[in-house]
Amino acid sequence: MSFKIPRGTQDILPEQSAKWQYIEQKAQDLCRRYNYKEIRTPIFEQTELFARGVGDTTDIVQKEMYTFEDRGGRSLTLRPEGTASTVRSFVENKMYGLPDQPVKLYYIGPMFRYERPQSGRMRQFVQFGVEAMGSDNPAIDAEVIGLVMDFYKELGLKNLKLVINSLGDKESRNSHRQALIKHFQPRISEFCSDCQKRLDKNPLRILDCKQDKNHELMETAPSILDYLNEESKDYFKKVQEFLTQMGISFEVDATLVRGLDYYNNTAFEVMIDGEGFGAITTLCGGGRYNGLVEEIGGPTTPGIGFALSIERLLMALETQGISLPVQEGLDAYLIVMGDEPKQLAPKLLHDLRSNGLTVDTDYLNKKMKGQIKAADRLGAAFAIILGEDEIANNEVVIKTLATGHQESVTLDNITNYIQSKLEEI
Amino acid sequence: MSFKIPRGTQDILPEQSAKWQYIEQKAQDLCRRYNYKEIRTPIFEQTELFARGVGDTTDIVQKEMYTFEDRGGRSLTLRPEGTASTVRSFVENKMYGLPDQPVKLYYIGPMFRYERPQSGRMRQFVQFGVEAMGSDNPAIDAEVIGLVMDFYKELGLKNLKLVINSLGDKESRNSHRQALIKHFQPRISEFCSDCQKRLDKNPLRILDCKQDKNHELMETAPSILDYLNEESKDYFKKVQEFLTQMGISFEVDATLVRGLDYYNNTAFEVMIDGEGFGAITTLCGGGRYNGLVEEIGGPTTPGIGFALSIERLLMALETQGISLPVQEGLDAYLIVMGDEPKQLAPKLLHDLRSNGLTVDTDYLNKKMKGQIKAADRLGAAFAIILGEDEIANNEVVIKTLATGHQESVTLDNITNYIQSKLEEI
Repeated sequence: MSFKIPRGTQDILPEQSAKWQYIEQKAQDLCRRYNYKEIRTPIFEQTELFARGVGDTTDIVQKEMYTFEDRGGRSLTLRPEGTASTVRSFVENKMYGLPDQPVKLYYIGPMFRYERPQSGRMRQFVQFGVEAMGSDNPAIDAEVIGLVMDFYKELGLKNLKLVINSLGDKESRNSHRQALIKHFQPRISEFCSDCQKRLDKNPLRILDCKQDKNHELMETAPSILDYLNEESKDYFKKVQEFLTQMGISFEVDATLVRGLDYYNNTAFEVMIDGEGFGAITTLCGGGRYNGLVEEIGGPTTPGIGFALSIERLLMALETQGISLPVQEGLDAYLIVMGDEPKQLAPKLLHDLRSNGLTVDTDYLNKKMKGQIKAADRLGAAFAIILGEDEIANNEVVIKTLATGHQESVTLDNITNYIQSKLEEI
Repeated sequence: MSFKIPRGTQDILPEQSAKWQYIEQKAQDLCRRYNYKEIRTPIFEQTELFARGVGDTTDIVQKEMYTFEDRGGRSLTLRPEGTASTVRSFVENKMYGLPDQPVKLYYIGPMFRYERPQSGRMRQFVQFGVEAMGSDNPAIDAEVIGLVMDFYKELGLKNLKLVINSLGDKESRNSHRQALIKHFQPRISEFCSDCQKRLDKNPLRILDCKQDKNHELMETAPSILDYLNEESKDYFKKVQEFLTQMGISFEVDATLVRGLDYYNNTAFEVMIDGEGFGAITTLCGGGRYNGLVEEIGGPTTPGIGFALSIERLLMALETQGISLPVQEGLDAYLIVMGDEPKQLAPKLLHDLRSNGLTVDTDYLNKKMKGQIKAADRLGAAFAIILGEDEIANNEVVIKTLATGHQESVTLDNITNYIQSKLEEI
């Protein structure tokens, strides 16, 4: 009987995992510089958390969650995104009481959505996200946007487009809402049944409808930017000023909206512009959610964050022909010939690795030729040759594979020899 | 409405996550030196994989799995351990055909078992494990054991005890099996019903029974070591010789067994000896599984590996009072006073971070005193003070917080100043 990987998931194999490690290291390093600290929440949560935190009218909650009962009859759900869990932990651990506010957190980990698998959409995928909770200073909006732009930039990605918008504060959103209802109501019967339901409940989401996106009323719909009150306008202006000073270019797009009530003010997306990327153009989405902490049972606390998919980032890097600087080759390959040398090899290998060298050897009793081939294949800088003659003299022969240069080196001098040669390269 | 984390799971909060990163980095670094490459398999697999790979008579499969149906009606299970998934990927991706054998893989990731939560046992826990598939050279057994011992040693753990045993090859195991049946059969009615079932099916597992562990027949049961044939004896002897040469001390314990058919030859555990550790003494378990790849649908392929829990490792480090060298403090904290400085702060901060410095600032409009307190709390090496006067002169004041020394530095010289001062420390 043979087994297949579950549909919509993937194994990250050795040739790929070095890239993943590099990207995660970059995220860790950047977050350290920005003073965001890592949080790791469980893979699953109470189902109700996501209904609340993600929104029970969303496709994610209605159609895409991996929900199951555990053996104790509790309804659990594999997390479809990272913000709700992070906020749950913020509230449960009373982080709003910590002396340093805002609390700046990041996460990297697998998320799960039962979608039709397609290029760039997996049922298990990895998100990197940050959340800053406890400040509604526009400078923190600029910081969060700066972090994600730096992340892509330091990985070498080009042709990025930052799109920003403001959803305004509660008052602005209410005025806009009234205007939307007034705009759509007279002809709502021409829209799909979902949109008809949305009209009263959440008219902003009509603008997101895929089915009705070509209806003429869509283009003439009132723009949120015309309904921002003075405070919201000022907030948005400051975010833009900070970004400009930081040298980050952006476009304002008034159609960039988020339908859930607890989103407000800044919304942003990072898109990738360019060929070969098919339908996938959004790499990262983020925004302010000043109502979310309260929704999840905490005190009123402003927040902002973003989330991005590592899988899509890897696709974007590949499309642009960017190879990450991952080091793959061995420092040395230990070639062993003869019975006595074979007896000594595990100890020698262990010593070299303890001294920090990346070394491997043959475990299949290959002949000399096969071992040399393996050394080449594994990208070894040096071959260390241990045979009967060498053991008799308490030494090995070290061959620099790039040049073919060979030298005899005593057993206890191998690490020094290789390290000093590696420094020369 | 407020939400609680699911029972038996934990959030890894910022004060802990730095330790996790350090440990994972250590595992990555060590595996690189040993030439083991990372593999990442999905969080869930087809349920049947674990019934096969872990064994359908085990407690894990019978009582502890998180099993559910996805929206397409497939039975999926959150992985309870890492070996079955790794072997599934090895087979599915035909890694047995790669030119470099054995294929040496490692994984670090969450596993799931529905157990009664207790100290050191979580329902979600993280395992680090390695698997070497494609060689039955005793030197690879020594390598795998050497890797885990180095891992603990390099983290500073003391009082470790390595226990090894041999389960022999198929022939040896069959002789032992007959001897066990002969030993227990006459008085099997004195044993629990599970043991009665095990007698024919898998008498080795009787030795693992918790209920009957004090029965007098347990102590006098035939030892596998007396039933090893010449080949198995020789194999075990070589493993021990290699370990001795590598300077790794060990004890042989003939009662260390693994009940599943595809385990053979080397079995080992790393125990921790010492106070304050309660009932938990095993940190790591591993062994040879020459039948597993075949069981999971691949060609006959020898394999060996280990798995260990990071949670238990952290407990062990704590018990021994070992603090990992994680760096937490900021390079600098930017103190900002006045409107114009506040306008300039995001750009300055962005520049410093782009130059590699770890810097934070105040987002809550705190007074000077509050900002200085924050700088101290965050362990900043320097305070960069940006006020109206400073801006007028295009400079900042940099205060070395350890000494109180202050200096004026021009805006474009801040990074150089701090970097050179940090090198002096």
